[in-house]
Amino acid sequence: MSGTNRTLNPILGGPTIILVEPQLGENIGATARAMLNFGLVDLRLVRPRDGWPNDRATSSASGAAQVMDAVQIFDTTAGAISDLNHVMAATARIRAITKDMMGPRQAAQDCRQRMAAGVKVGILFGPERAGLDNDDLALADTILTIATNPAFGSLNLGQSVLLVAYEWFVTGEAGVEPNPMDGAEDQATKEDLVAFFEALEKELDTGGFLKPPEKRPAMIRTLRNLFQKARLTDQEVRSLRGVVVALTRLRGPRR
Amino acid sequence: MSGTNRTLNPILGGPTIILVEPQLGENIGATARAMLNFGLVDLRLVRPRDGWPNDRATSSASGAAQVMDAVQIFDTTAGAISDLNHVMAATARIRAITKDMMGPRQAAQDCRQRMAAGVKVGILFGPERAGLDNDDLALADTILTIATNPAFGSLNLGQSVLLVAYEWFVTGEAGVEPNPMDGAEDQATKEDLVAFFEALEKELDTGGFLKPPEKRPAMIRTLRNLFQKARLTDQEVRSLRGVVVALTRLRGPRR
Repeated sequence: MSGTNRTLNPILGGPTIILVEPQLGENIGATARAMLNFGLVDLRLVRPRDGWPNDRATSSASGAAQVMDAVQIFDTTAGAISDLNHVMAATARIRAITKDMMGPRQAAQDCRQRMAAGVKVGILFGPERAGLDNDDLALADTILTIATNPAFGSLNLGQSVLLVAYEWFVTGEAGVEPNPMDGAEDQATKEDLVAFFEALEKELDTGGFLKPPEKRPAMIRTLRNLFQKARLTDQEVRSLRGVVVALTRLRGPRR
Repeated sequence: MSGTNRTLNPILGGPTIILVEPQLGENIGATARAMLNFGLVDLRLVRPRDGWPNDRATSSASGAAQVMDAVQIFDTTAGAISDLNHVMAATARIRAITKDMMGPRQAAQDCRQRMAAGVKVGILFGPERAGLDNDDLALADTILTIATNPAFGSLNLGQSVLLVAYEWFVTGEAGVEPNPMDGAEDQATKEDLVAFFEALEKELDTGGFLKPPEKRPAMIRTLRNLFQKARLTDQEVRSLRGVVVALTRLRGPRR
């Protein structure tokens, strides 16, 4: 099924889709196909299990060359989102994370509003079985979750991307007003944000805060999540870097 | 991806899905799986090419036994819809047919309204390549069509059913999408927040950050606004206080 007789303004573009450690080429191809059906074109892969290019992905993409030819490969999730300003993490898991949660419809509207204001948005999808890990979730601003029949929730990766892309397309047809609250912001890039995180964590290591070692990853996630929630601007990230410098300035020689 | 922690009333049931001359078992299984994800249970097949049961269908149904075990097989489309009151035909083709046309969202709402009034509704999907023929279309009351990127419309059968079933489910949730304010239940008190601000600002004064004096109020507002945006929890405020202590711990004597 495809096509319509309606006059659309497809606005090819839309949010970036990032697949973290996708395992099956079929799912990568299905993702590309689902994306292009609904006007999304920017697909990035983090550590695809079977490398790249992938013949199975190509065949299951059903000719979505516009997406497949432009796929970018990254070693890390942080690298894959470094030029983006706002990241949603698609996950089914309920975890003790205090981020905003929304379904595909609300996420699509949120995306439209942000992108209309010049914010670069990406959506992370985890590996087929495990889903996104906590470190990847800590890089995200909001959680996207798809409600299903409580007795049978079995959406695969391609289907999840399809629903998200579909809602993106439908919101474009309906027209969404840019949110003036978002327009004024000059949101920091993820690259700047991660650089701040790393500077902070280095100083916290020096200060003996991130101990014992087995608790360090969770403590770092807590801090990263906390700052993600603030949707920091460029200027705010610079202020925070200044704060860290100021707080550590009067330290004596390292012990 | 699947599941949520919300209490839903799934109302298993929904419209009957009728696949006319489906060719690939994979698509039949994907249809069953897509249906059950979103609460639909009544699947009927008209002249499935490879007969029934179909091992490929079973394996791609991913355990949607509730649908698969109840599949009914018919020789004719007319027979498959005989007990229904209202039939929609899913098709991409534009033909000289004077029936109402609607997208999945409007179709789902229309279904809900009819079924709430006791009307039995079914949705016809045609063979993978050819789609529904004119005789089958003539049995339908309305046309359901899914708008896609005009330059790349390539939804397969399972995907089309998925989108229709998804819209059915979402109309049933009726505003049950997670509220973006959810997850804020542990929010820190303003008292704790201000105590953290004051501790931070005291240390920043010591570190010489809040200078010159005439800029101090604006700098403080910038920092406070930044942390307010994060809607911090109790635990996060405690973490941040720990961060400030850690960052200042190694300071030498005040100068």
